[in-house]
Amino acid sequence: MNIINSTPRADGFYMPAEWEPHGGCVMIFPERSDSWQYGGYAARAAFVRVASAIAESEKVTVCASEKQYENARRMLPPHIRVVEMSSNDAWARDYAPTFVTDGREIRGINWGFNAWGGLADGLYFPWDKDDKMARKLCDLYDVDMYDFGSFILEGGSIHVDGDGTCITTEACLLSAGRNPNLSKTEIENYLRECLNVIKVIWLKNGIYNDETNEHVDNICAFVKPAEVVLAWTDDENDPQYEMSRSCLEILERETDARGRRFTVHKLNCPAPVTITAEECGGLDTMDFAPTRTPGERLAASYVNFYISNNAIVMPFFGDPADEPARALLAELFPERKVIPIPARDILIGGGNIHCITQQIPLRGKI
Amino acid sequence: MNIINSTPRADGFYMPAEWEPHGGCVMIFPERSDSWQYGGYAARAAFVRVASAIAESEKVTVCASEKQYENARRMLPPHIRVVEMSSNDAWARDYAPTFVTDGREIRGINWGFNAWGGLADGLYFPWDKDDKMARKLCDLYDVDMYDFGSFILEGGSIHVDGDGTCITTEACLLSAGRNPNLSKTEIENYLRECLNVIKVIWLKNGIYNDETNEHVDNICAFVKPAEVVLAWTDDENDPQYEMSRSCLEILERETDARGRRFTVHKLNCPAPVTITAEECGGLDTMDFAPTRTPGERLAASYVNFYISNNAIVMPFFGDPADEPARALLAELFPERKVIPIPARDILIGGGNIHCITQQIPLRGKI
Repeated sequence: MNIINSTPRADGFYMPAEWEPHGGCVMIFPERSDSWQYGGYAARAAFVRVASAIAESEKVTVCASEKQYENARRMLPPHIRVVEMSSNDAWARDYAPTFVTDGREIRGINWGFNAWGGLADGLYFPWDKDDKMARKLCDLYDVDMYDFGSFILEGGSIHVDGDGTCITTEACLLSAGRNPNLSKTEIENYLRECLNVIKVIWLKNGIYNDETNEHVDNICAFVKPAEVVLAWTDDENDPQYEMSRSCLEILERETDARGRRFTVHKLNCPAPVTITAEECGGLDTMDFAPTRTPGERLAASYVNFYISNNAIVMPFFGDPADEPARALLAELFPERKVIPIPARDILIGGGNIHCITQQIPLRGKI
Repeated sequence: MNIINSTPRADGFYMPAEWEPHGGCVMIFPERSDSWQYGGYAARAAFVRVASAIAESEKVTVCASEKQYENARRMLPPHIRVVEMSSNDAWARDYAPTFVTDGREIRGINWGFNAWGGLADGLYFPWDKDDKMARKLCDLYDVDMYDFGSFILEGGSIHVDGDGTCITTEACLLSAGRNPNLSKTEIENYLRECLNVIKVIWLKNGIYNDETNEHVDNICAFVKPAEVVLAWTDDENDPQYEMSRSCLEILERETDARGRRFTVHKLNCPAPVTITAEECGGLDTMDFAPTRTPGERLAASYVNFYISNNAIVMPFFGDPADEPARALLAELFPERKVIPIPARDILIGGGNIHCITQQIPLRGKI
């Protein structure tokens, strides 16, 4: 693995859209008992369902700690690869490499990771093992790496259309715990150079109470160039209403890198999902305090789906909105089957299916 | 990775000779301070030289613990892949998979590993991480696996010509700490089924004071079918003399699987190599006792070389016998260059270059 002292843009590499062909997908086996209830048993079962759904059409590699390796190998079907790798938690989207391609070769980007806010408002300490994963994964996949470790970014805070446009949120990228010494313009320049995009669309915010500082991948996702799904609610008393409405207004007045106006599909959220006292009782404490409190609202959104080579792997919450969400995604991705996964056990950890996956673009060597 | 409930012989797979084309080589980064002096610093430098020599003509993967990962990545050149994997020590030959092929696909064999003798006369406790490595490596390389974990065998205790013949030693394979409940015939049947060989040549013993119970890969190696090098000394007062002479007598009266007589090339050992008091002082204790004592003889032999795609990577001991050994191997492998590596820092750990490497036969997918 070579470290490349240049930028993807300078070398003609770009981040492809998620619907472009994948060579594979990487995930991390969940383990920490302050993130996942009852020591992670239910979360692991849910992750296995996600991995299995994705593995129907692409090679999935699951990273497991030394301690969990045998569990992972036993629980996952044999065509899924398990590799030993240490981590602090299980969010492949946020600290696996962001992969770029020039159509022939793929390369990885290592961003800096500080647990969604470092000492300002990060979610756990330390985060050193997570931060090392992008580099280890580039080495594992034998791809060269751009090292932007001094720039804090999580993969879940960006979405691209593969055609020159990136969407992100100000709430996250301009947060005090990421890159407080960089201006919005400087941050945007990082995205342009690293993702090789022409235009960055800045939404103000994401999903209410999303502890990632409102990652874009929970509120808005491309389904094709100039066409997005937006997490929505019609309940004007829900704090989510103004947040989604703000996003809609921005999307309606913006154009993409090629000057196209956006088609916005509203993807209705489930009714507010809150954690129960019983679920909180299954979570270990962190720094002598509970990580969640009964009644706390979780950032449930159907936008947090993964586009695999032949499927849309999406979360279900056991809510009446499940089926309409499935139907909309089926309509928007007619060439893919929609695979719903009951995702409450993932949501409790603080994210969803998109957050726990990272696609690897297809290349000759994979 | 699928576990295959059959045998290589039944499926038409065999273990190729080491000189057949490799897709790669796997090694393990040394770390434990009771095996390697001064916390492994010198050993790591020597392993890096070995890996670099092999990587001139095949893809080398080095497994490093979480703790040593960064050191490995920093010390090894970028074209060598580093993957995180836990182990108890660093002997890839003995607990990485033995790979077999049918000419199209490769598969791995998992043997049981018990640290060269388990509770009878094993060299350390526990050995659980080592024992899991073959399985992890099959998964890493995405190859299916034959599981013979109930049969104790180390890769260094067998050599094959890829043409139906295996050489091993009674001292090791019939030792009390391996498979005491199996007869010699039953053990031989394992070798026939797993390596897909027709004939097993049993040498009585190996190198004097070789703590592996005298692995064959330190005393005798094929250089082509029906042609071997044999570690030798002309000093009749050296206990090695009778051991090597016994091997020679067996080889002179035996024929291989195809009925050919053996050509035996004597490869003279260096003068007895003993560990110094200073070197012993750099080794941590194990179970409250020193692992080596000053003056202890080490099992130094030039036979412990590795055949890479374009080279013979061989140990040098700073002895007058170095150059004649190099010249003989150069003559026997005229199409390969001979790369000598100063190997005292590896020898102190209890083995040599062949012991710390495991070749992976070439396949389409690698």
